[in-house]
Amino acid sequence: MAATSAALSLPLSSKLGTNSSDSSLRFLNPKPILLRSPFFSPNVVEIKRNGISVSSASPVRSRICATSAQVMDQSVAALGSKASTVVDVDLGTRSYPIYIGSGLLDRPELLQRHVHGKRVLVVTNNTVAAIYLDKVVEALTKGNTNVSVESVILPDGEKYKNMDILMKVFDKAIESRLDRKCTFVALGGGVIGDMCGYAAASFLRGVNFIQIPTTVMSQVDSSVGGKTGINHRLGKNLIGAFYQPQCVLIDTDTLNTLPDRELASGLAEVIKYGLIRDAEFFEWQEKNMPALIARDPSALAYAIKRSCENKAEVVSLDERESGLRATLNLGHTFGHAIETGFGYGQWLHGEAVAAGIIMAVDMSYRLGWIDDSIVKRVNNILKEAKLPVVPPETMTVEMFKSVMAVDKKVADGLMRLILLKGPLGNCVFTGDYDRKALDETLHAFCKF
Amino acid sequence: MAATSAALSLPLSSKLGTNSSDSSLRFLNPKPILLRSPFFSPNVVEIKRNGISVSSASPVRSRICATSAQVMDQSVAALGSKASTVVDVDLGTRSYPIYIGSGLLDRPELLQRHVHGKRVLVVTNNTVAAIYLDKVVEALTKGNTNVSVESVILPDGEKYKNMDILMKVFDKAIESRLDRKCTFVALGGGVIGDMCGYAAASFLRGVNFIQIPTTVMSQVDSSVGGKTGINHRLGKNLIGAFYQPQCVLIDTDTLNTLPDRELASGLAEVIKYGLIRDAEFFEWQEKNMPALIARDPSALAYAIKRSCENKAEVVSLDERESGLRATLNLGHTFGHAIETGFGYGQWLHGEAVAAGIIMAVDMSYRLGWIDDSIVKRVNNILKEAKLPVVPPETMTVEMFKSVMAVDKKVADGLMRLILLKGPLGNCVFTGDYDRKALDETLHAFCKF
Repeated sequence: MAATSAALSLPLSSKLGTNSSDSSLRFLNPKPILLRSPFFSPNVVEIKRNGISVSSASPVRSRICATSAQVMDQSVAALGSKASTVVDVDLGTRSYPIYIGSGLLDRPELLQRHVHGKRVLVVTNNTVAAIYLDKVVEALTKGNTNVSVESVILPDGEKYKNMDILMKVFDKAIESRLDRKCTFVALGGGVIGDMCGYAAASFLRGVNFIQIPTTVMSQVDSSVGGKTGINHRLGKNLIGAFYQPQCVLIDTDTLNTLPDRELASGLAEVIKYGLIRDAEFFEWQEKNMPALIARDPSALAYAIKRSCENKAEVVSLDERESGLRATLNLGHTFGHAIETGFGYGQWLHGEAVAAGIIMAVDMSYRLGWIDDSIVKRVNNILKEAKLPVVPPETMTVEMFKSVMAVDKKVADGLMRLILLKGPLGNCVFTGDYDRKALDETLHAFCKF
Repeated sequence: MAATSAALSLPLSSKLGTNSSDSSLRFLNPKPILLRSPFFSPNVVEIKRNGISVSSASPVRSRICATSAQVMDQSVAALGSKASTVVDVDLGTRSYPIYIGSGLLDRPELLQRHVHGKRVLVVTNNTVAAIYLDKVVEALTKGNTNVSVESVILPDGEKYKNMDILMKVFDKAIESRLDRKCTFVALGGGVIGDMCGYAAASFLRGVNFIQIPTTVMSQVDSSVGGKTGINHRLGKNLIGAFYQPQCVLIDTDTLNTLPDRELASGLAEVIKYGLIRDAEFFEWQEKNMPALIARDPSALAYAIKRSCENKAEVVSLDERESGLRATLNLGHTFGHAIETGFGYGQWLHGEAVAAGIIMAVDMSYRLGWIDDSIVKRVNNILKEAKLPVVPPETMTVEMFKSVMAVDKKVADGLMRLILLKGPLGNCVFTGDYDRKALDETLHAFCKF
């Protein structure tokens, strides 16, 4: 529908050879990862064909990562044969399921089986509360009079993802006399999930929590994997914790009320998975972007499921981002600079990431690491997703540099970036690149 | 010197039998715990004779916990044969050593071997900075030009252990462009250790940190075991994380500059270890309290070492306080109520804990769980340590009840307490007690 057939071919430039003296983490020559479930569909096996593998002498390559299976239980059948999918995030004792499907908020037993204790605190924002809070409270309490639910409603937006607003969650929890056996529930997008998760990690030194993401962005990315935190005026997500939820419940029906701009923002992360590790998924997106933008339910459900599988697999292999997990941040170092420099909430996270992806791809091309056809395809797909392909005009080279210097991926003063390298679906996380290319990219995209 | 020989006998009241239908965790009938090190002194084995063991069908009873050994290495010999002790906190991949000795800050290699990366942030307060900051910076950098050290100096006192002041640590770390490979160093007492530890747990979702405790309180208790956090206006330590340091470095020389009141405050925790699990240590304290108050170096060193051994063992068995570890909070639920109700910083933590211990002991006696000789001995030893044995006059029953209701040990609305039960050195952590006894204790110690 969208991409031309020419764009689907993958011509390799002569510049694409790997430099064996490169000290960076290298994700070329991937090997397939063994999968646990006999129900794993052939599609999912194919995901890994162009996937990333860590080149260090590590035993993780053969570890089992994410599994998914179609679930059709009796309660589903009773609810009109709505099918749901479960993707498992495999983290040993901290493993948890991601439930994906239509109408899941109408299935109280799904949520209730993951509630610990008798007290629940729902953390949400004013926009989402107006639409879904009652529904979630009902799902938590239906047939379960033992549980009492409190809620705290935060203002909506990235600019409120700070310590002052986070304190309101602690205030509410303490004033409500919640104890260690309570459960926090994050109901909303990425901002709510990150804040609620960090509050759960810190309240009484850690209580259980559940993610109910209601945006594409949070459903395909931020609700999975346990990264929680808040922004500092000098940079994004600089204060936080790795803290895993008890489960993630994705009711795809919540996307019906999502504004178009939010929908597009989430698609930036979907596109990212294709670029860094899943060429086949990228090709599927090239064909199906119009359907995604038109909110075709089955297209959205597939994109969410496949994104969660990619995310779960990477997180299972590298929970605390010692290497591989950092690749999920393609475009994010540039993107965070836009969000911080331009002002939190001016652009949505995915919009900033989209411009950041373009800049990372441009730089990869300048380094001679990718073919120009990839540059074109990335431009095309982002435009089709109605995402920006240049940073805001007011961003300067200096603004980029100063914010990028406090990025979490800086190590011993070295700014490490995720860059594409090789055929579509391959990337590197490295500090070993020619600084001139970075300068050229910044100057190409900034007027000053 | 201190206790009469009569006080050393342990008459058992007929009321001391255990009730087998009691649903609480029960720590009577302890069994000795196997010890790892061949260097473990007979003294240390004896510690466990009256120690606590968990009665649930758990394999932890025979787990290896804390080990200690005299260390005399070449560098020590070169520095004038100063001996130091190492107590290991055994937490698998998160294990770490506690170094205890005189002059350890003059041994840069001890500290430097635990510094990760090239950047260090020392977190301290204005009182301690004036005396020890230069010394610590020298220890970090001597013969090690690779490392650069920043510092942030907070105001001194429990009333500053809040989020506003914590943000100053984040501000400094971010403005200094510290990255994930940096190391935070806590230089000071319990407040600094708790705040620096929580900042380290949260900065960029977790960086390494080192504890250099400079008070008895922090050396015998708060620097060991990974509890970090800050206060909320409604309660103590309600926001925080379990986060273990790379090492704890206790230079006992730092106690030379400690005010008398701070010294006594720390002794409250030393006395606590004797009461909850180490009767022999309590008896040693009864004989040696005058020496401790007079700052006899060898008496202090022994008290610190034995306290750390007790703490390390409990933490190794129950890092995240699912049961056993809670017993370290004897007197703390009452004590926290005093600190919160009376105003943070009015009384030192150990002063509040001392009054709290008296109240817990009084309640244990009212329940018929301990003999009156224990009540007398606890009163005597606290008085000899120059600690209060009654709460502040302005504390009311209602103030106690309202703060105790938000204590972290409350579970599903049930207020659980640590109470003594049985012979000296035994306690229980339970919510199964007669509420009348709690009321009687509160009314006995409060005018209103």
